[in-house]
Amino acid sequence: MTKSLHPGTGSAGRVDYKSIVEPYAGDMARVEDAIRAHFHSNVALIPNISGYLMGSGGKRIRPLLLIISSRLCGYAGDMQIDLSVVVEYVHAATLLHDDVVDGSNLRRGAESANARYGNQASVLVGDFLFAKSLELMAGGGDMRIVETVARATRNLAEGEVLQLVNTCNAGTTEEIYLDTVYRKTGALIQACLEIGAILGKADEERIAALGVFGRNIGMAFQLMDDALDYTAVEEQWGKPVGADFQEGKVTLPLIRAYIVANAEERAFIERSMESEDTTAEDLARAISIMEKYGAMEGSIATARKYCDDAKASLAGFSPSPHLDALRSLADYIIERQV
Amino acid sequence: MTKSLHPGTGSAGRVDYKSIVEPYAGDMARVEDAIRAHFHSNVALIPNISGYLMGSGGKRIRPLLLIISSRLCGYAGDMQIDLSVVVEYVHAATLLHDDVVDGSNLRRGAESANARYGNQASVLVGDFLFAKSLELMAGGGDMRIVETVARATRNLAEGEVLQLVNTCNAGTTEEIYLDTVYRKTGALIQACLEIGAILGKADEERIAALGVFGRNIGMAFQLMDDALDYTAVEEQWGKPVGADFQEGKVTLPLIRAYIVANAEERAFIERSMESEDTTAEDLARAISIMEKYGAMEGSIATARKYCDDAKASLAGFSPSPHLDALRSLADYIIERQV
Repeated sequence: MTKSLHPGTGSAGRVDYKSIVEPYAGDMARVEDAIRAHFHSNVALIPNISGYLMGSGGKRIRPLLLIISSRLCGYAGDMQIDLSVVVEYVHAATLLHDDVVDGSNLRRGAESANARYGNQASVLVGDFLFAKSLELMAGGGDMRIVETVARATRNLAEGEVLQLVNTCNAGTTEEIYLDTVYRKTGALIQACLEIGAILGKADEERIAALGVFGRNIGMAFQLMDDALDYTAVEEQWGKPVGADFQEGKVTLPLIRAYIVANAEERAFIERSMESEDTTAEDLARAISIMEKYGAMEGSIATARKYCDDAKASLAGFSPSPHLDALRSLADYIIERQV
Repeated sequence: MTKSLHPGTGSAGRVDYKSIVEPYAGDMARVEDAIRAHFHSNVALIPNISGYLMGSGGKRIRPLLLIISSRLCGYAGDMQIDLSVVVEYVHAATLLHDDVVDGSNLRRGAESANARYGNQASVLVGDFLFAKSLELMAGGGDMRIVETVARATRNLAEGEVLQLVNTCNAGTTEEIYLDTVYRKTGALIQACLEIGAILGKADEERIAALGVFGRNIGMAFQLMDDALDYTAVEEQWGKPVGADFQEGKVTLPLIRAYIVANAEERAFIERSMESEDTTAEDLARAISIMEKYGAMEGSIATARKYCDDAKASLAGFSPSPHLDALRSLADYIIERQV
C-alpha cells in the first residue's frame, strides 16, 4: 500500500509525503506550471519529449527542498519558482542521459524517454534542458546561484562517469561508491538547500548547515534506493526488483556482502556483475548472500546515520514549521517504501 | 596543397589562416594551456577523453574570433582566455554529442571519441565539458556573458534536434535548413564576437554589429562546409567526400538541386537520403545532378553573400589591424579548401 494514496493509514510514526508538501502546495503548483511553460521551443520534438519526461511523475523533492529552505531563511520573493525549474531541468537532463548510458527501458514504471523517442533525441533534449536551465539562471541574475548550480552539475557529470567506469566491478570500494553517490545525488540536493538559503540572504554558517543537511539526505535517499532495489514490492517500485543487480550496478549492499563473502560467493558475485543476463535464481542467490551477511540492514543503518547527521546539522536553527518540514522529509526518506 | 602548410604559396588574393593568427599567437597559446588545465578532473576517464578530443586539431576559430573582437573593442584584461575555453568546451561538448547522435566514426580525419571510448563516455564527458564551461563563466562574474552563452547553447541544442528531425528528408525546405545552420553554427560564433565586445565595454550598437558579423560568417562557414563535403580533396578534407550524402544529411546543394530536379532525379534523391547504404555510383550520380542545376555554385554564392553581409556589418568601425583581421577571416572562410 503506498502511503501517498492512503495518508494517515500508515503505522505509528510513519511520515506522509503529501502532508509535508501541503503547506507549500501553492508554490509547488506554480513550479509545475513553470516547468511546462519553460520547455516551450519552436522545435516540435522538444516539448513532446520534455512533456513526456516531466509528466511521468516524480516527487519533485528538489523543488520542495529549495522552497522550504528559502522559506526557512525568510525569503518572501518569487525567484524560488524559476530556480526550482532550474534544478528540476538539470535533474531531468541527467535522467535522460543516464537512461541512454544505461540502456534503460523503464523510468518510474513507464517506458523511458529513450525507449520511446530513441537515444539520439534523449541526448539532445537533455542538452536542451541543460541549456534552458542556464538561460533561466542567467535571467535570475545571481552569480552565486549560478556557481552553486555549476558545481552541482559538474559533480553530476563526474558521478556519472565514475559510475560508468565502475559498472560490473564487484571490487568497487565503499569509498569510491560513496563518492559516486555524493556526486550523483548528494551534490544537487545540497545545491537546492543552498540556493534557498542564498535567496533568503542567510549568513554563511546557515548556508553551509543547510548544504550539509541536503548532502546528507541526498546520500540517505540513494542508499535507501539501493536497499529498496532488492527489497521493494515490485508493483510499488515501478521497475523490476533487482534491476541494479541485472544491470551490473554495484551498490552498497553488494559491496558490503562482497568484502566479507567466502571465495565461492565472491566468485559468484563477480560472475553476476560481469554477466549480460543473470537469472531469477542468480538474483535470489545474491539476495540470500546479502542477507547472510546482514548487508541490506547494514546499508539501511548507514542511510539512517546520514539522516541523523542531516538533522543534527539543523541544530542552530530556531523552531519553525519549515524546520519541522525538513526534519519530516529526512524521516520520510528513511521510512519510504517507494 | 593545404594553405596552412605553405603560407604565401597560394594564388593572388588567397588568405593564409596562420598569418591571421600570428598577431594573437600569445593569447592563443595561453588558451591552449587553459583548455588543458581546466579539463582536469579526479575522475580519470575525463581528462583522457577531453585530451583526445581537444588534442586532435581544429582551428580554434571561436577563441580567435572572441580574442580579436575583444581587442577591437579595446579590452586589455585577461578574461578572454577563460572565456575562450568556455566557447571551445561548449563547441567540443556539442561535437561529442553530435558524433554519438550521428554514429560518426571519424572526426577531423582521426577516430572519433565515441568510436574510441564508446557512446556512453562521450555523452557523459560532453556533459562534463558543458558543466565545466558553466563553472568557468560563473567564476568570471559577468551575467551578460552567461546570458549570451546560454542563448547560444540553447540554440545549439535546438539546432541538433532540428537536424535530427530532418535527417533523410529530401524535402527539407531551405528556410528550415538555414534556421538549423544558424542554430548549429551561427549562434555560437555570434556569441564569441558579442562576448569580445562585452569584455571591451562596447556600446549596444557595436555589440550588435559584431554579433551580426559572427552570425553571418558562421552561416558562410557551414555553407562552404556543405559544398566542400562534395567537392573537397579527400586527403585534405579529413573524412570521406560525400559523407553528408551517405549519412542522409540533407544540405544546401542537395536542397537546391531537389527543388528543380525532374521526377526521376527527385525519386533518386529521396531514395538515396532514406537508404542506409548508398554506393560510390549513387554519390557520383547525386553530384552530377547537383552540377547539372548549378547547385554547388549556388550554395557557394549564398555563402559568399553571407560573407559580404558580414563585412558590411563592420562599416561603422574605424580602420585597425583587428578590423583587417576580421575581414581576412571572412575571406578565409570562403577561400579555404579544408
